[in-house]
Amino acid sequence: MKEQLNIIKVGGKIVEEESSLVALLRDFVSLPGRKVLVHGGGRSATAMATRLGIETRMVDGRRVTDGTMLEVVTMVYAGLVNKRVVARLGALGVKALGLTGADMDVIRSHRRTGTQVDYGFVGDVDHVNTDALALLIEDGTVPVIAPLTHDGQGQLLNTNADTMAGETAKALAGRYDVTLTFCFEKRGVLANADDEDSVIPHISADDFAQLKADGTVQGGMLPKLENSFAALKAGVSRVVITRADQLTQPGTGTVIE
Amino acid sequence: MKEQLNIIKVGGKIVEEESSLVALLRDFVSLPGRKVLVHGGGRSATAMATRLGIETRMVDGRRVTDGTMLEVVTMVYAGLVNKRVVARLGALGVKALGLTGADMDVIRSHRRTGTQVDYGFVGDVDHVNTDALALLIEDGTVPVIAPLTHDGQGQLLNTNADTMAGETAKALAGRYDVTLTFCFEKRGVLANADDEDSVIPHISADDFAQLKADGTVQGGMLPKLENSFAALKAGVSRVVITRADQLTQPGTGTVIE
Repeated sequence: MKEQLNIIKVGGKIVEEESSLVALLRDFVSLPGRKVLVHGGGRSATAMATRLGIETRMVDGRRVTDGTMLEVVTMVYAGLVNKRVVARLGALGVKALGLTGADMDVIRSHRRTGTQVDYGFVGDVDHVNTDALALLIEDGTVPVIAPLTHDGQGQLLNTNADTMAGETAKALAGRYDVTLTFCFEKRGVLANADDEDSVIPHISADDFAQLKADGTVQGGMLPKLENSFAALKAGVSRVVITRADQLTQPGTGTVIE
Repeated sequence: MKEQLNIIKVGGKIVEEESSLVALLRDFVSLPGRKVLVHGGGRSATAMATRLGIETRMVDGRRVTDGTMLEVVTMVYAGLVNKRVVARLGALGVKALGLTGADMDVIRSHRRTGTQVDYGFVGDVDHVNTDALALLIEDGTVPVIAPLTHDGQGQLLNTNADTMAGETAKALAGRYDVTLTFCFEKRGVLANADDEDSVIPHISADDFAQLKADGTVQGGMLPKLENSFAALKAGVSRVVITRADQLTQPGTGTVIE
């Protein structure tokens, strides 16, 4: 039987605000089994860019990352946000290790090209180094992954944290019984977008086809669920979509399996 | 017989300038045996602080690090500088891993207090986690250490890179045949401060007593040499004081053993 591994992805807002970060890390530490944390940091990056007089350009919710913006996100994601999380986990008795994809060649990508919009130094994931991650995980270390990868030619690339969590989960599914949890601002997948109490507790592939057909699931939730089912297909045991403050509460959020 | 380990400390200037960084990493990669790189980044931190409208205060050549400056050095050392080095080493085929002392609890320190000057969030090293470092080194990973530590209570602390290199060397001397190399702006310890060709090739403990007595060694070189002899006493095989561009040239620099 494979050992349990929890891969938790949290957005920038959770790790950027003191009170929610403290609560998140306390909950994270109390989760059983081996763990990996993947974090964002977009709000802090935008705030830092503004302080430096650098304009933030977003297209379809994604950051256009020229050379100057790459410096900002490298500083903010790998420096400010990542090390704050690592030091806080250390205080909770967790041996945490902050990583970008460049560290130990953990996640390699290529620069996105051929799109209508030039997103600049943005990477699409090619390869996850499961040996390196497993070495750390087996040692009892908790990888804390910042949303940056590299192309193996010396270039760092800004990379979507959801994608990095998903690809990491898929790659490690061969060795572990992986639960991939996406924390976002809603309590789960909602049957009625305006009603936080309408969380759909469980979605199977058949349910998803139905929910798509009747229009219950639409907009930004569609790619999230499509990615979730792709992860299941690649061997991930289950995907959970939930709100960070429900992380340790059984029977909350939406379980996809 | 213990395996060879090269611990190289390079100042900020070397890693901050494109041309010298490229040359340094090429030389670093060609060194034999296991390796650790410890880097600075002070010039970039000061430049970034200036861009953010934050005043840099130095006392006796050391940075006063209040909360705001700690954010700057965390971004610059652990983010900008460290990840640039890691990605570049990756391109040279080296599996590099960027670390602060907080990562894997590698280097723990306490906040400096009781000094006449309040240096703020500045740490003095207490403990080096040799198990964590050895795990990485034995895996063939090259730790790339940024000059930050933590106190184990969640607080990051700005820490002198020379000291971190020295303490890391001492701690690893029990497991490896450690050569500790300090790269600085001179070609070595000079018999005549104004003559770059007057490098003293070898200094023993007896030589040092003599060089101190006759005033050949003075000023900033005194603590450097005192730290070097302390490292030898703690089991480090040899300490080299040299210029970065001489790293791979035998018979250059000053060897202390």
